[in-house]
Amino acid sequence: MLTAHADLSLALDVIGIFAFAISGGLVGLRARLDLFGIAVLSWVTGLGGGIIRDVFLGDVPPPGIFEPWYLGTVLAAGLVVVVAHPFLVDLRRRRPQLRLGVIGRAVKYLDAVGLAVFAVSGSMKAVLLGAPPLACILVGAITAVGGGALRDVLVGQVPEVLRREVYAVPALLGATVVVVAAQLEVLSFVVIWSAVLLVLGIRVAAIVLDLQVPTAPQQGARP
Amino acid sequence: MLTAHADLSLALDVIGIFAFAISGGLVGLRARLDLFGIAVLSWVTGLGGGIIRDVFLGDVPPPGIFEPWYLGTVLAAGLVVVVAHPFLVDLRRRRPQLRLGVIGRAVKYLDAVGLAVFAVSGSMKAVLLGAPPLACILVGAITAVGGGALRDVLVGQVPEVLRREVYAVPALLGATVVVVAAQLEVLSFVVIWSAVLLVLGIRVAAIVLDLQVPTAPQQGARP
Amino acid sequence: MLTAHADLSLALDVIGIFAFAISGGLVGLRARLDLFGIAVLSWVTGLGGGIIRDVFLGDVPPPGIFEPWYLGTVLAAGLVVVVAHPFLVDLRRRRPQLRLGVIGRAVKYLDAVGLAVFAVSGSMKAVLLGAPPLACILVGAITAVGGGALRDVLVGQVPEVLRREVYAVPALLGATVVVVAAQLEVLSFVVIWSAVLLVLGIRVAAIVLDLQVPTAPQQGARP
Repeated sequence: MLTAHADLSLALDVIGIFAFAISGGLVGLRARLDLFGIAVLSWVTGLGGGIIRDVFLGDVPPPGIFEPWYLGTVLAAGLVVVVAHPFLVDLRRRRPQLRLGVIGRAVKYLDAVGLAVFAVSGSMKAVLLGAPPLACILVGAITAVGGGALRDVLVGQVPEVLRREVYAVPALLGATVVVVAAQLEVLSFVVIWSAVLLVLGIRVAAIVLDLQVPTAPQQGARP
Repeated sequence: MLTAHADLSLALDVIGIFAFAISGGLVGLRARLDLFGIAVLSWVTGLGGGIIRDVFLGDVPPPGIFEPWYLGTVLAAGLVVVVAHPFLVDLRRRRPQLRLGVIGRAVKYLDAVGLAVFAVSGSMKAVLLGAPPLACILVGAITAVGGGALRDVLVGQVPEVLRREVYAVPALLGATVVVVAAQLEVLSFVVIWSAVLLVLGIRVAAIVLDLQVPTAPQQGARP
Repeated sequence: MLTAHADLSLALDVIGIFAFAISGGLVGLRARLDLFGIAVLSWVTGLGGGIIRDVFLGDVPPPGIFEPWYLGTVLAAGLVVVVAHPFLVDLRRRRPQLRLGVIGRAVKYLDAVGLAVFAVSGSMKAVLLGAPPLACILVGAITAVGGGALRDVLVGQVPEVLRREVYAVPALLGATVVVVAAQLEVLSFVVIWSAVLLVLGIRVAAIVLDLQVPTAPQQGARP
């Protein structure tokens, strides 16, 4: 059963790395980085959360820097961004008003996918390595928000996790489901994917609601 | 004696976490983050320095992410910020000229408290784990400045430790007192609290002097 | 042979720390930090990459915070910046148009030296500690770019590694030379210094070409 979980954990990691790596590439594109800068930002965003997790759990050198599956995933995501790059640059040039809309929205949804799978895979890995329950929950949440926070700090933005209401909370919730299920010894394939869908559902709902009310009128002269 | 020191170390950590967590919450408030962003910034500021320390000392998973005392302290600090939040937002709205003064000053003094206790508790923990003396001093200083530096980077500011003359120096000094006392085997309750007061005294003196001369006239056209 | 490599690794580290520490000091000067801020930024820039490497390789507490050679090197670099400080401030005041040119160029070349020796020493250390080949290459590259990236983030800039085309690539290349040579058991003094010169040569060529074409005309209205 442990092995099965490790396999599933790998699958979740690969999905999360792919989603975050593409989000990193798009943020790099938006920040007008060149192709190499975009590749590095993809790498940091895709693998950053997992590497922080592994350092915290004492699993060094972190699999994120030598596990072929992980590196291959980041390279594949980089390739997607590189292939899409001329098209997106062209789109940006012809329709500047679309830019923030299209790229910004894509980043948010990719981020939501990465957040959901990393919250679950991060807490699962902590459980497998025998960390205390509370640590497992927080390690899951840190895995989920770490890569995106590094990405934003590197391009000089305040990280999403500080700016969005419903970002860390679903990650904590998903990790809690995993850890409680593990404590009750009912951590199954169904529970794991339900936890992923729970985080994803809450986060996507928050994005959709937020996008519908993008500039809520604030009292007074707040910028 | 080792156990007594570990207890005292915990007490110091709790004070430092509380002070830094509140400073993080206030910085988040000033950066106009919402309540969730404020809570995350409190957490990072309160626990960041200690987590860096524990990763450096190989004490993983870091107690900062599972020790109930630490998490409880951060939650208590978060609660204080949340309760004070409407009052402070209101104060900011009615008296904008007071804002920077009141919050900025509170952040500085809380920071000074966190700096003092973390410099001492960080170096004590390194001593207890048998690190070399020089490493103990630097680990103490890094513990002291780490949380505040993460806080400032996350909201896009150049960290206090780079901008203030007398910031890292008292932290190094306090850690040195602890390490020298430990080498001489005279590390007692009195020595530890004296080291805390030494750091706090120097830092507070620097704040007071700096506040009295806030905008020293600079030669030429420096902005 | 292992010992000889460790010695050479130390020599490379000392060169890299010195170059990066001075670059950090100059960036601090340009960001108008005071002397203490400059000293802290020197320290972070000089030792940051190596400390990240050591945490990733599980070599804690990181030698960067207690190895006397390393600390002495940072202190010496700090002394150089402090002694040169009044001269440079004076130069900046009398000839503002020279400022960016002189300091910016010096930072680039020092950065190139640090990048070259850290890419090689970082991957060598990973090889000596028995990490997998792919991890060795990436650890080398992370060691090379880590200190500079921390430096830039701390003063609120997007790191060089994201903005420059030919920055991470030569570091990866140099680390690959070291790791392949180690796998083939032909890692010698000559190979090591050739790898350093390879990275340095590529990076310096990129700087020179970039400096000659500093503002390549861009299509359209890009700022």
